[in-house]
Amino acid sequence: MIRKTIDETVYNARGGEGRVVFSHILTKEELMGHGNVYAKVTIKPHSSIGYHQHVGNTEPYYILSGKGIFTDNDGTKTEVGAGDVCVIKVGEHHGLENLTDDDLVMMALIINEG
Amino acid sequence: MIRKTIDETVYNARGGEGRVVFSHILTKEELMGHGNVYAKVTIKPHSSIGYHQHVGNTEPYYILSGKGIFTDNDGTKTEVGAGDVCVIKVGEHHGLENLTDDDLVMMALIINEG
Repeated sequence: MIRKTIDETVYNARGGEGRVVFSHILTKEELMGHGNVYAKVTIKPHSSIGYHQHVGNTEPYYILSGKGIFTDNDGTKTEVGAGDVCVIKVGEHHGLENLTDDDLVMMALIINEG
Repeated sequence: MIRKTIDETVYNARGGEGRVVFSHILTKEELMGHGNVYAKVTIKPHSSIGYHQHVGNTEPYYILSGKGIFTDNDGTKTEVGAGDVCVIKVGEHHGLENLTDDDLVMMALIINEG
């Protein structure tokens, strides 16, 4: 079956700033108990996903386009761009900010603990 | 932790033609028993992923760029492009061909049966 994503606009995602659009590829039901979210995520200009913890699951970010500031579990902030994979372990924290005038686009997969 | 993908070139993927590059975002171990592959997949010009079955798991394709011909479980062939989600159920078949002179880029996630 061929279909489009289910798009969801979130303001102040995880306590962040501005507007983030989640283009859901699978529903939680279609993830069959293995995870919660599988989506292309567009962080709009001057918007962010706030720093937050993943309890019982993890969420790699894979940057497709744009530039962002990734905050890792130890608080380190690093500029990331297309091709970068931002990985945290189960139980750790992360966040991602778009300080630019262009969209920051990434893939997000929330996968449960093993 | 920020890192790059682990890139793997496959010829005649699943019995297809030509060359396909898998840019692995997570390893199988990092998928913690929930799946086998999470990758950006580049089907090079005039290359394909052959028609194949998913036993015990499923694999949505999410097209990022380029144009492809998706073969669904019933044998139907449909042109797909950026933003299209190609979904099959556990146990079903699919394949994807790039008949063009440009790369066809998509996200692939192989997720286990619930």
